Amino acid sequence: MSFATVEYEPCNVRLLDQTRLPGELVHSDNRTVEELVESIRLLRVRGAPAIGVAAAYGVTLAASLAARDGEGAAGSIERAIGQLRAARPTAVNLDWALSRMERALHRLTREGAADLHAGLLAEAEAIHREDEKLCKDLGRHGAELLPDEATVMTHCNTGALATGGMGTALAVVYTAVAAGKRVDVVATETRPLLQGARLTAWELVQHEIPVTLICDGAAGWTMRQRRIDAVMLGADRIAANGDTANKIGTYNLAVLAARHGVPFYVVAPYSTLDLSAASGEDIPIELRNPEEVKGWRGQPTAPEGAEAFNPAFDVTPAELITGIVTERGVFSAPFRESFLRHYDAPAGE
Amino acid sequence: MSFATVEYEPCNVRLLDQTRLPGELVHSDNRTVEELVESIRLLRVRGAPAIGVAAAYGVTLAASLAARDGEGAAGSIERAIGQLRAARPTAVNLDWALSRMERALHRLTREGAADLHAGLLAEAEAIHREDEKLCKDLGRHGAELLPDEATVMTHCNTGALATGGMGTALAVVYTAVAAGKRVDVVATETRPLLQGARLTAWELVQHEIPVTLICDGAAGWTMRQRRIDAVMLGADRIAANGDTANKIGTYNLAVLAARHGVPFYVVAPYSTLDLSAASGEDIPIELRNPEEVKGWRGQPTAPEGAEAFNPAFDVTPAELITGIVTERGVFSAPFRESFLRHYDAPAGE
Repeated sequence: MSFATVEYEPCNVRLLDQTRLPGELVHSDNRTVEELVESIRLLRVRGAPAIGVAAAYGVTLAASLAARDGEGAAGSIERAIGQLRAARPTAVNLDWALSRMERALHRLTREGAADLHAGLLAEAEAIHREDEKLCKDLGRHGAELLPDEATVMTHCNTGALATGGMGTALAVVYTAVAAGKRVDVVATETRPLLQGARLTAWELVQHEIPVTLICDGAAGWTMRQRRIDAVMLGADRIAANGDTANKIGTYNLAVLAARHGVPFYVVAPYSTLDLSAASGEDIPIELRNPEEVKGWRGQPTAPEGAEAFNPAFDVTPAELITGIVTERGVFSAPFRESFLRHYDAPAGE
Repeated sequence: MSFATVEYEPCNVRLLDQTRLPGELVHSDNRTVEELVESIRLLRVRGAPAIGVAAAYGVTLAASLAARDGEGAAGSIERAIGQLRAARPTAVNLDWALSRMERALHRLTREGAADLHAGLLAEAEAIHREDEKLCKDLGRHGAELLPDEATVMTHCNTGALATGGMGTALAVVYTAVAAGKRVDVVATETRPLLQGARLTAWELVQHEIPVTLICDGAAGWTMRQRRIDAVMLGADRIAANGDTANKIGTYNLAVLAARHGVPFYVVAPYSTLDLSAASGEDIPIELRNPEEVKGWRGQPTAPEGAEAFNPAFDVTPAELITGIVTERGVFSAPFRESFLRHYDAPAGE
């Protein structure tokens, strides 16, 4: 990739500002935990795995600031973890990465480590490197599911912009293409924030992979008019029974794919599994500002006086999911049994 | 209604410019047939019945211009009919209204009428008045289908802006509210041109009817989260078997409604029926400029190099349609038999 989605330098979590793409390639510098929380809320960085990596670096940033200011380090780092954890509610990777950083903090404190910053940075970098590695594994497992000439429909953005590596569902496309398969992508634009139009199309154009953009409402008709070999998309949280929370619009696509006999794959790291959630009912769904629906970049598209309902995610029931592609393999129904067969402490713990 | 969607004054078809709503309430004057064709193509006037009314006035305009210029009137009026007919391919009402104007022209010519303009104006006004009347009838038949407290999901715009009267599917809402029912409307924004956000929400706010806007991708999740009593929307052309062409995104909603057991009603004048089309396969679907998908009001939302697929309509198979509400009553499957039972020459012929 010719761009870095998340980078860390001392006292700065540097993000490729995804709210400005595809028009502008600019970076957002986050030199305080508050700035980083704001950047996560405003979706300068988004995509469940990328948020996890950014938050891990945020904990490192907190250690760096505490050292500089001579504050009680452990206490202020714990506070930072709390602030970051509250930034967005649905993606479990955020919580997962922060819990891992917290365990590292406790271990370092217990061991009386002289340099908390160095220890936490090593942990954050490990999370980042593991994310890179698992993107490759996701891509490899997923690519085996595609025929030599495939048209894949995808939603939102699940590529290098969404992860610390080359992506989740888009990693499958990249890996299949690298292996010599011919893949056409149909990308839904993904209102209200147009991650499909702005980010997925941009990434694919960079890679010279053919991409056809459609409005979200055109998904069913496109399945009728064109052969679609698979729907592949990401996840923000997967319950123990396989119910999957992902970007709003995912559930529509799952229902449409089922009607058209199109295989529907969720591609996500094993850490997206939340075995404490028995089903989708237990997954909190973030409601975002109605103004996102009522306009585009500050230009109103709807009259004042109209309400708007703006859930950021929806839950797709497991029965509509053909398979869940993780770095540990491809799971299928019954998911709970399938998940538990591959269960062990997440890598790196 | 406090606004006129289509008006005629000598040498001018005056349209409420719907591309400028909801921000600006401005009119578009169309003093030549070419200007009117352009206005129809650019969707300054849209909605199948409103296009029919505008085109009928366009024929009257042609007669007026021919009289002024001393041209061979019948020939130049026939040419105008041809130009108008080609303006948009999917809505059958355009063709229906123009065929009716053409028959009136032939009759007037045959009778050696002294004033073609007056004769054609009378016919266009009749089409307009009949549209007003049938909107009321549609509203009455449809309102009987709603409970006393109802939440209706609708798509695109099917109100006074889409017809010569108070609307098709929205006429049902207006009539039910006037009859004392409490109706909440969930309006899909309807990308790419946002007729739901810009026009439907605007009309409903004018009427002080509660409206909640959602992104098209949120339709399925909204059906899971809220009780929706019916989906009600319009049609641009209905084949003899009941397959219905309507704004892109309609098919998605039909599939989702079927999954959720939500009744799915098409509300349209009987003239939307095209008995010469055996099924949806025979309905031409307009493909519009991909740039509509790749941006919003001239602001790009997607990178150059991305393709876009931009069908203006889709076809919903009859099996997903609970009922088709027309001014002649509510039809249900098997539709062909149901239509033919009510068949006679369209009113006014």
